[in-house]
Amino acid sequence: MKLYDTKTAPNPRRVRIFLAEKGVEVDSVQIDLKGGQNLSPEMRAKNPTAKIPILELDDGTCISESDAICAYLEAVYPEPPLMGSTPLEKGVIAMWQRRVDLCLMQTVVHCFQHTTGYFSDRMTPVAEYGEVAGKDAVAFLDVLEQQLATTKFIAGEQFSIADIIALCAIDFARVVKIRIGENQTNLQRWYAEVSSRPSAQA
Amino acid sequence: MKLYDTKTAPNPRRVRIFLAEKGVEVDSVQIDLKGGQNLSPEMRAKNPTAKIPILELDDGTCISESDAICAYLEAVYPEPPLMGSTPLEKGVIAMWQRRVDLCLMQTVVHCFQHTTGYFSDRMTPVAEYGEVAGKDAVAFLDVLEQQLATTKFIAGEQFSIADIIALCAIDFARVVKIRIGENQTNLQRWYAEVSSRPSAQA
Repeated sequence: MKLYDTKTAPNPRRVRIFLAEKGVEVDSVQIDLKGGQNLSPEMRAKNPTAKIPILELDDGTCISESDAICAYLEAVYPEPPLMGSTPLEKGVIAMWQRRVDLCLMQTVVHCFQHTTGYFSDRMTPVAEYGEVAGKDAVAFLDVLEQQLATTKFIAGEQFSIADIIALCAIDFARVVKIRIGENQTNLQRWYAEVSSRPSAQA
Repeated sequence: MKLYDTKTAPNPRRVRIFLAEKGVEVDSVQIDLKGGQNLSPEMRAKNPTAKIPILELDDGTCISESDAICAYLEAVYPEPPLMGSTPLEKGVIAMWQRRVDLCLMQTVVHCFQHTTGYFSDRMTPVAEYGEVAGKDAVAFLDVLEQQLATTKFIAGEQFSIADIIALCAIDFARVVKIRIGENQTNLQRWYAEVSSRPSAQA
């Protein structure tokens, strides 16, 4: 297996942490997103939406989208489970995975892309929308703060893919000056814990 | 089980079609989204992000987010599989599920919400961004057209959750005047096929 990766981008890090938690090592190829290396015909043949990461299997099959790569890895390497074991665990973890993804990761990424114009050579940034997305991201931190008042990790007592996405989103959010608030003590406790796991270095 | 549902919204329909394909019937409660019934303290206790659908289990546990409800249902009712059986099927279906969701459903919904101001009492619509999102949705139809030149369904030879999301997004896209192009013959063939399944009436 080979991972097409960009060290500085938040979505590939989701996969790197997921792999580290599973104890699986893969070869990786660094792709220069800012330089547009992902937009080449060769890379578009691997992923028509030209996004990174991409997991290339030994037979050449390419799986893109961080969530999908994780779903594949969870099926191949079930231990330790990061997406739930029972139907209820699967449902609750998927719920938080989705909330964190849409309400935090996507909003932070939209805030970054639309307010900075980082990818203005390939998309139309709308600064006003970027500001709205940033406010939505900040508002969602309150939802997490409330949830973490009663649970150890975001989706319950077990570390899961929802924690991985939230960690990647919150670390990346520094680029748009969004941080956990000083009064969000449950989020701070959670952040200290997940950041200290060896996988967070991935 | 009880489904909090809104008949006219595209995301709850994903769950209704998923249930129909599984042959599972549940009680449903219609929620008036436009009137803000989903924003009540009672509904926020079921889902802090105040979105619909919500699946309430018999013990009172609530699972929200369409994707998560489907993940739960797939685990409880594995037949027929709609999210893949082998690791590779799971990965490839999750990849197309995610592409269709982010590049079509979310863009169509953003186009609708930001250009019409339908929910301007609870969000800040940015019309210029809505137009950009609509163009992104149209561009993604070409990705599907290309994929469907070689496969029967979006993620391969089997009907899957990716087809369900695409059908719901494309039907909803009429409200923002986005339709499959006359020259997109593979998409048209696919649309006729998935629309004729009994589940499409859900």
